[in-house]
Amino acid sequence: MSQAMSDIAVTELQQMAASWESEYKQLISGNNVRLDLSRGKPAPEQLALSDSLDGILHGNFITPSGIDTRNYGNVLGIPEARALGAELMGVPANEVVAGGNSSLSLMHFVLGTAMHQGFWGDQRRWRNDPRPKLLTPVPGYDRHFALSESFGLEMINIPMTPAGPDMQRAAELAANDPSIKGIWCVPKYSNPTGNTYSQDIVDAMAVLPQQAASDDFVVLWDNAYAVHDLDEAGDILPCLREACLKVGTYDHVVQFASTSKITLASGGVGFIAVSENVLKVLEKHLSVFVIGPDKVNQLRHVKFLGGRLKEHMAAHAAIVRPKFERVLTKLRTELADLKVANWTEPKGGYFISLDVQPGLAKKVITLAGAAGLTLTPAGATFPYGKDPLDKNIRIAPTFAQEAELEQAMHILTLCIKLVSAQATLGQQKV
Amino acid sequence: MSQAMSDIAVTELQQMAASWESEYKQLISGNNVRLDLSRGKPAPEQLALSDSLDGILHGNFITPSGIDTRNYGNVLGIPEARALGAELMGVPANEVVAGGNSSLSLMHFVLGTAMHQGFWGDQRRWRNDPRPKLLTPVPGYDRHFALSESFGLEMINIPMTPAGPDMQRAAELAANDPSIKGIWCVPKYSNPTGNTYSQDIVDAMAVLPQQAASDDFVVLWDNAYAVHDLDEAGDILPCLREACLKVGTYDHVVQFASTSKITLASGGVGFIAVSENVLKVLEKHLSVFVIGPDKVNQLRHVKFLGGRLKEHMAAHAAIVRPKFERVLTKLRTELADLKVANWTEPKGGYFISLDVQPGLAKKVITLAGAAGLTLTPAGATFPYGKDPLDKNIRIAPTFAQEAELEQAMHILTLCIKLVSAQATLGQQKV
Repeated sequence: MSQAMSDIAVTELQQMAASWESEYKQLISGNNVRLDLSRGKPAPEQLALSDSLDGILHGNFITPSGIDTRNYGNVLGIPEARALGAELMGVPANEVVAGGNSSLSLMHFVLGTAMHQGFWGDQRRWRNDPRPKLLTPVPGYDRHFALSESFGLEMINIPMTPAGPDMQRAAELAANDPSIKGIWCVPKYSNPTGNTYSQDIVDAMAVLPQQAASDDFVVLWDNAYAVHDLDEAGDILPCLREACLKVGTYDHVVQFASTSKITLASGGVGFIAVSENVLKVLEKHLSVFVIGPDKVNQLRHVKFLGGRLKEHMAAHAAIVRPKFERVLTKLRTELADLKVANWTEPKGGYFISLDVQPGLAKKVITLAGAAGLTLTPAGATFPYGKDPLDKNIRIAPTFAQEAELEQAMHILTLCIKLVSAQATLGQQKV
Repeated sequence: MSQAMSDIAVTELQQMAASWESEYKQLISGNNVRLDLSRGKPAPEQLALSDSLDGILHGNFITPSGIDTRNYGNVLGIPEARALGAELMGVPANEVVAGGNSSLSLMHFVLGTAMHQGFWGDQRRWRNDPRPKLLTPVPGYDRHFALSESFGLEMINIPMTPAGPDMQRAAELAANDPSIKGIWCVPKYSNPTGNTYSQDIVDAMAVLPQQAASDDFVVLWDNAYAVHDLDEAGDILPCLREACLKVGTYDHVVQFASTSKITLASGGVGFIAVSENVLKVLEKHLSVFVIGPDKVNQLRHVKFLGGRLKEHMAAHAAIVRPKFERVLTKLRTELADLKVANWTEPKGGYFISLDVQPGLAKKVITLAGAAGLTLTPAGATFPYGKDPLDKNIRIAPTFAQEAELEQAMHILTLCIKLVSAQATLGQQKV
């Protein structure tokens, strides 16, 4: 079968659909699979790479810089952990906050500061605007959307291209609406498309705060997959800091990173990077509710990753790469010829973004769910859970074992073929 | 010398003051001491009691309940850590959130929720009031005040008595001003007085949300020193939960606790306890910015403290008790007869509260600072840093070594004698 579905004769497609439907019915009658491709969670084998974190200190809790990590203090983190964050983000260590286990919590802090206190020690606060808004490249990261919504920030979709967000559209919107206060970015191996921003996009992003009508526009740069390459020759993300320093906008950028997908998803270290000016203001507001992060865990990370980050990430890649390949192979084998879906083939990160034919994503996800396969809810990669074309499905291949992955992708591709055939045939029933 | 300073003849007191002044001048000319009684930090010997936390898991990261602590999830904490919090707070485990390393950050979350989302899933939010206020028993904990101020919450002082806050005054104020939204409490070994609330006070506190004119009044119950007794026969804090359940106000209480002063100040576990109703709402808001706490560290704590909390706290007491005794002995020896100061003699906690004669605290603290002894800034135990009588000094005996403590208390009592004598003699100069 090497025909596009739309070219297949009706009677033939009817036969194929009947066969897929019968296979699907058999699947759900068995009703004994419980598979999950919904969240970007590391597999136990990946987590085990960092098991030696616990006990790595051998009773020595003092940093090379002389800090007793067990006691209170050091709201910005220990210098050695700030240096680790600097390495991840490609910035100087004195621009880094090393925090607790969650960059998401740091993002919450940063949005709260933007809303209620401002970043610049002056009167600018997003809440001064009756309806502050953010630009959200789509498809994107659902937790960014939930966070923004919780602060009452209205979201405006910007289409993603393979090179990054549509910056012309972003600039037009920001220049004409002073209520637009910022833009969310996952610049490397973007969640969920896996795309990495090009030099042109990064340069355009650096200029955006100047083009914006609002004087408190901020680029929120969540570099969650900074070192998460599947192959040694991963994508290279151009340096936003450098681009901003050239045009004088560095006070309008907040970068985030985390070791959650480097060491332990639960017990890692999160980071913020900002200009020294903004850091002074952030430190003041952070000090209100943080006496210090878990410095013991920071020291563990420094000892564990020091000098061997690249090697450690290669060990992750050796586990993750075959899973990505299995998903992609299955997509190619089952769907390529039929031309009923498109997908990305990222060189790193945690996701593959799959677009089915418009209007079918929700049906596919529901059908797969009934067969025991949990996928990210339809629409989750869009603000307010609304995928305007109802076509995007996010695949998270990392957590499942390879045999499960094969089975899960079998269910997913079967559901896509069945739903696509039904749509093509103008049928509704399963 | 067994006379009160006010009874000493002028010429004799002049001689004494001259001698104290000369001793003080000698002290500052040496200028080589750097002592600090300012913050309630555990001593290195206390921290070392928990050194075996690191490595305690021996490669087993799975909880008895079957959770892989290394991965994402479990926003309320692992069940075993919630049970540990329940033990600390005397509540059922299903009412507990086990969080990250900081109860202060949990308080920040709780105040933010009270302001912007409310605790009850309805329209009640503190920000609906143009000038929301909190009652603050004084002297109290400076970080509670800074936190409240950061949310724009106006603070109204309530006098502390040895049995707890003046509840008659609290009830009068709350009943007459619907802008009063809550009260801060450190109910056991209160910071800084070391007092523990009596049964009458706890009962009165349970009724307060009903007496309040506002329908979203909340008791903020920071039980920071729940198990921090200096002797086996420590103070017994009556159960607020029980008192509230009797009168039906349990949806208006948020309790906090932490292991920061049980295990590691930097690497502990913080807790919230609320009614099941309120927990549902808190979980929803917490989930916006927390995927899960550091469950690995929670499991460490469960393994480390399980079944031996009492024994572990006795080891702390063995280190801390002699330090409290040394401070109290020095106060008694140097100041009791002169009647120039009053102080508390707590059975636990981290502080001794010292009142000098009105108007003299700032001078004493400045003088001590010039001699190399850092004390908590004058006024810090009051909202906005304003001690209306300028008399309270908070002493934190735990961090210093005993020899340093002796020296620090020598400087402090010398400064008190000198400043009191000068005031008595009507002099201003040093």
